[in-house]
Amino acid sequence: MRLSDLAERLGLEIEGDGDVQVTGAAPLEAAGARDLAFAAGAKWADALAASKAGALVLPQGMDAGGRPVLRSTRPRRDFARAATLLHPAPPIAPGVHPSAAVEPDAEIHPEATVGARAVVGSGARVGARSVLHAGAVLYPRVEIGQNCEIHAGCVLREDTRIGDRVVLHPGVLIGGDGFGFELGDDGAWEKVPQVGRVVIEDDVEIGAGTTVDRAALGVTRIARGVKIDNLVQVGHNCDIGEDSLIVAQSGLGGSTRLGRRVILMARTGIGGHVSMGDGSFAGVRSGIVRDVAAGQRVFGSPATTEQIWHRGVAALTRLPAALKRLRRLEKRVDRLDPPDEPA
Amino acid sequence: MRLSDLAERLGLEIEGDGDVQVTGAAPLEAAGARDLAFAAGAKWADALAASKAGALVLPQGMDAGGRPVLRSTRPRRDFARAATLLHPAPPIAPGVHPSAAVEPDAEIHPEATVGARAVVGSGARVGARSVLHAGAVLYPRVEIGQNCEIHAGCVLREDTRIGDRVVLHPGVLIGGDGFGFELGDDGAWEKVPQVGRVVIEDDVEIGAGTTVDRAALGVTRIARGVKIDNLVQVGHNCDIGEDSLIVAQSGLGGSTRLGRRVILMARTGIGGHVSMGDGSFAGVRSGIVRDVAAGQRVFGSPATTEQIWHRGVAALTRLPAALKRLRRLEKRVDRLDPPDEPA
Amino acid sequence: MRLSDLAERLGLEIEGDGDVQVTGAAPLEAAGARDLAFAAGAKWADALAASKAGALVLPQGMDAGGRPVLRSTRPRRDFARAATLLHPAPPIAPGVHPSAAVEPDAEIHPEATVGARAVVGSGARVGARSVLHAGAVLYPRVEIGQNCEIHAGCVLREDTRIGDRVVLHPGVLIGGDGFGFELGDDGAWEKVPQVGRVVIEDDVEIGAGTTVDRAALGVTRIARGVKIDNLVQVGHNCDIGEDSLIVAQSGLGGSTRLGRRVILMARTGIGGHVSMGDGSFAGVRSGIVRDVAAGQRVFGSPATTEQIWHRGVAALTRLPAALKRLRRLEKRVDRLDPPDEPA
Repeated sequence: MRLSDLAERLGLEIEGDGDVQVTGAAPLEAAGARDLAFAAGAKWADALAASKAGALVLPQGMDAGGRPVLRSTRPRRDFARAATLLHPAPPIAPGVHPSAAVEPDAEIHPEATVGARAVVGSGARVGARSVLHAGAVLYPRVEIGQNCEIHAGCVLREDTRIGDRVVLHPGVLIGGDGFGFELGDDGAWEKVPQVGRVVIEDDVEIGAGTTVDRAALGVTRIARGVKIDNLVQVGHNCDIGEDSLIVAQSGLGGSTRLGRRVILMARTGIGGHVSMGDGSFAGVRSGIVRDVAAGQRVFGSPATTEQIWHRGVAALTRLPAALKRLRRLEKRVDRLDPPDEPA
Repeated sequence: MRLSDLAERLGLEIEGDGDVQVTGAAPLEAAGARDLAFAAGAKWADALAASKAGALVLPQGMDAGGRPVLRSTRPRRDFARAATLLHPAPPIAPGVHPSAAVEPDAEIHPEATVGARAVVGSGARVGARSVLHAGAVLYPRVEIGQNCEIHAGCVLREDTRIGDRVVLHPGVLIGGDGFGFELGDDGAWEKVPQVGRVVIEDDVEIGAGTTVDRAALGVTRIARGVKIDNLVQVGHNCDIGEDSLIVAQSGLGGSTRLGRRVILMARTGIGGHVSMGDGSFAGVRSGIVRDVAAGQRVFGSPATTEQIWHRGVAALTRLPAALKRLRRLEKRVDRLDPPDEPA
Repeated sequence: MRLSDLAERLGLEIEGDGDVQVTGAAPLEAAGARDLAFAAGAKWADALAASKAGALVLPQGMDAGGRPVLRSTRPRRDFARAATLLHPAPPIAPGVHPSAAVEPDAEIHPEATVGARAVVGSGARVGARSVLHAGAVLYPRVEIGQNCEIHAGCVLREDTRIGDRVVLHPGVLIGGDGFGFELGDDGAWEKVPQVGRVVIEDDVEIGAGTTVDRAALGVTRIARGVKIDNLVQVGHNCDIGEDSLIVAQSGLGGSTRLGRRVILMARTGIGGHVSMGDGSFAGVRSGIVRDVAAGQRVFGSPATTEQIWHRGVAALTRLPAALKRLRRLEKRVDRLDPPDEPA
């Protein structure tokens, strides 16, 4: 692609030779003469000077060393957009692979793809331009919208409903029973039936190996635009608000409610029946057991506000020295105020 | 189902019109005129008053607002039992799907079901009324008892033995090699052979994406009635006692021994070769590195008794203020007992 | 196998009857007359005395109770080697199962095995004596070297490259997209394209349910000899050095770099763009957010050096008592230096 074409599609200003051809996007260190690379500030300066990249995305004022450059107020994002254009996903031919097992009453759109060994249960539907990769399994009555990509190893249990442009990475497990048991009179556990379903709205992306349980009754909902990383557990009846983002290995107990644009950093754990308001944030490894207000940032386990948590961490650091100071002080007070002699 | 029939099957007393038809179970907020709902105490009172439920399960004395009601000393449990009756699992036709790959010497009971694309290895056995869902894989010599449900994406490695009424949710991985390596003379890791097996007894339920490793030698055992949630790791040679319950994302190191009715809350980690006695309990996110006595409740990481843990948490909360008090006290003592002038 | 043959193959000295036949390896408690068992020191003495093992691996000087014994300076390791010889993996016949779906332009070595329902994409290659178990899925252009074992439920996305003698346990998910999003102007997340690949070198072993993400650009690399346990998350662009070892449920953020022979104990979490030097070590449940120098041992979360961590843990233990001492001291100083009366 000509650099000037890229500039036009991204709506960026170009400096230098717009006729240069770029065929890939690469980090500064790995980029060659036909690659586009980016830098976003002074800490990239050395790598930028050493880079063999043929073209660059840079903020205003950063020296391109004579190479052609696209100027951007958000170089990282515009580089990502350029990479998307330079590395388009290879087209996948529509149609049902002869080795797939599709029940006769399932509806597969003529423009959809069902891969080798995939299984589509009775009454399930796959929308236009959606791709079910090899070996993925749809239980009865699963509905997949348009332009979705469901990777190999995914299992969607009965009645799961998926919107448009949803991506499920390999091995995502949707609609397993929630974990609900009541103690029986004989000390054994009685199962609480899990007869709800999972609804995943448009533009959601879910990472490899993540599990989302069906509701006990009603719906486990993942709203439009949510992004979930790998090996995350979403319990039954959770409701995750639009554009929320959940990093790897986090876990949401049953009936957790996240508002819109909530961010959970890696390994966050949330107890059951807890709510986090719109725009709230949980730091790495938070353990959340109480409701979090909209916009609040919480840290630690049990999670507290940023201020209390920072104060606590600082205090802990000073604790070993404080214990010594305490001992010294006791001795000084002993001298001022000699304790009674031991009996 | 007539409410009076439901009452009879649950052994509950009925108040009001027993001829009312109930067709589903639902939470108070979602229930309609043909749904059964429940409340278990005063905190449900508002939702109960607003509910459109056609019938209710309530404790003695709680006002049903004129609707027919089943009286229960354990409303939640009896509602769960009612829901099980109202939402029976749809029957699954027995037989082997033509697309399944079953080795000639495997034994499939005529009343068992083997789903599309499922694989049954040489010498494996599937008992009466057990269901192997689409794409599940049994390696050679796996034995499945009666009335089990093995969901899509499950893999059971060779020689795994499963009892009766066991449920494995999607993507459960049983019998992978345990993690055992010895440091070789050249600094590389030598594999310790993992040639044992996994035995899962009757009435066990295991959640989506959970992994249970085969024993190095001997058996990794999950006893009758154990319930395990999603994404739990059970190491080689673990022995989990009857009716124990393990919540999501917990991990058991090799040779962990749990007694009967042990409860591990979410994200508990247990080091290798540690035992927990009958009826012991570990709080959320515990890190257990020493044996826990029968009946003991432990918390924190490294886990300690409830009392020590509570005292520790309380002390931590007071630490930032205590550091200020220490500083103030030092100044007061300085005034009483002026320190030597600095050299 | 005759004990003397075993001794010769292991290069160990034999004491007693070398003609004894051993057919299995077992722990002391479970071993019978035809089993080999081992003990590595005094803490095994009682079990050793009670054992019915027919032959033993023991350190010099430990009493074998009259039984034939192999003397070893590393009994555990030599017992493991003996077990490998006594329990050889059953041979798996080469060839492609008729129910497998192999694209016409894939290359399967005549000595390789492709199991039932396995899927091999266009342009993929499987080397000599490698085994693809039932239902494993190779996307287009995946390359598998020689003598590998890829278990059921594994998914390897396009362009993944695997060396020789690699073992992937059930349900390993390789090459899913990394988790990369930029905030768009409208508050929705824009995907950063993930167009790199995963390269796994020789002699790597990866546990059940573990996920390894493809690089955003470039390569996620797992070097020769690395051993990874179950349910571990390896983010995009990680680089894991030779012979490193990662225990269960750990998670590596994007662009983590581990040197050679790094050990991460269970549930370690590493933030993005962090490096750990050769031979460094992270204790159970460490949370690593800063670079770790070669050879350093870190503990806790946020992780610190062993010394600081131990001092911190000790100080915490003393904290409740210290708060009482502080209160007592305040009272004594109040008596020496009475505070002003409250207004």
